[in-house]
Amino acid sequence: MESTTQQCLSLAVSTVVFALRPHPSTGRTTPWLPLVRRIREPYEGLWALPGGPLEDDQDLADSAGATLLRTTGLAPRHLEQLYAFGNVDRSPGERVVSIVYWALVRRDEDARAIDGDNVEWFVADDVHGLAFDHDVIVRYALDRLRAKITYSPIAHAFVTDEFTLAQLREVYEAVLGRALDPANFRRQILAQGAVEPTGRHVTGTSHRPPALYRSNPAHSRHSLTIEETS
Amino acid sequence: MESTTQQCLSLAVSTVVFALRPHPSTGRTTPWLPLVRRIREPYEGLWALPGGPLEDDQDLADSAGATLLRTTGLAPRHLEQLYAFGNVDRSPGERVVSIVYWALVRRDEDARAIDGDNVEWFVADDVHGLAFDHDVIVRYALDRLRAKITYSPIAHAFVTDEFTLAQLREVYEAVLGRALDPANFRRQILAQGAVEPTGRHVTGTSHRPPALYRSNPAHSRHSLTIEETS
Repeated sequence: MESTTQQCLSLAVSTVVFALRPHPSTGRTTPWLPLVRRIREPYEGLWALPGGPLEDDQDLADSAGATLLRTTGLAPRHLEQLYAFGNVDRSPGERVVSIVYWALVRRDEDARAIDGDNVEWFVADDVHGLAFDHDVIVRYALDRLRAKITYSPIAHAFVTDEFTLAQLREVYEAVLGRALDPANFRRQILAQGAVEPTGRHVTGTSHRPPALYRSNPAHSRHSLTIEETS
Repeated sequence: MESTTQQCLSLAVSTVVFALRPHPSTGRTTPWLPLVRRIREPYEGLWALPGGPLEDDQDLADSAGATLLRTTGLAPRHLEQLYAFGNVDRSPGERVVSIVYWALVRRDEDARAIDGDNVEWFVADDVHGLAFDHDVIVRYALDRLRAKITYSPIAHAFVTDEFTLAQLREVYEAVLGRALDPANFRRQILAQGAVEPTGRHVTGTSHRPPALYRSNPAHSRHSLTIEETS
């Protein structure tokens, strides 16, 4: 039975936004995420996930989207609930439960600049020393991304509506952090049916232009065993 | 950035506990769940998921477990976070966000009686008219259970430590609500490596006693395409 708590606790909504970009050292494409520098205590001066208090009059996802827009200028088309973090000691001095959303942004969405002096993009695997338990949250989100890409079509969220199989493979390689054999990848991805040919090809590029594919809307879930290159 | 909400909102933790039992009409094994009759407003007299306010001094899962034990007498060995439900209008007169856990209980755990005059088990697919948005939550949990059983080893949560392939197949059949071809199931389940033979057999039953299997701890995730019987 639900009933009212007597004490006043805080509920925050935060968002992990992943985009794929080249790593500044290695040049290999890898997940990045935007962080916001805290301008007040607790953890003043540290970087944190974009977020804020749950708004009184907004559903959870709406509130996450609004606070993300306000703090970073980003408005990803799709936010999905990731997990609620609510350990007793995660915020000093008060009980704060944070409901965390995540978003995967496409190459063309990512092109928009983030907005604000205290907002920057970071290589997701390299961040540490964030405010609150946000190191744990980023790690959890990365683990979920790497697991989910192997059994669902979320890779499609990183490409444009029409894409080549090479572009899709690059998404898997960036997320999984390893090279995939192009022929095996092609065979597996076509066998599981989550993409379908558009009948069109990339124009004006080469003698044999690559075919363009799109998500197969009839295929809501797939399963893909990624084979490593030898 | 996380910061404090000014208003006081309530945070509840509730749990969907699934056990597999025969349907009273059809006799086919199907998911059941315990519900608690509300003894105060709002929704006095209606059935609701077991739950209660988040305890001040407890982490989310601990609080969900404690309130489940207090309201039903059940203490499943494994609680997993399912989803946070927080629509503005889900509870009359106040804003309540509910973080919902789920538990899958084994045949031998399920044998323990639930405790309390206002607690009963119901066929999960048949419940409706619950308090709050709990109809939506039960439907969400069933959908998640039916999706997740196809790509993860959660079916093992419904059987004892050692089980026959027939027992495991009965779990899939109960959750998916359809008969599976025994030979195909056997081939698929062995191919994906989530179970391993114990070397032992069921004793004292027949001329050719069935082999006993256990979960393969090295296999944290699997993928299984369920083929329907013809």
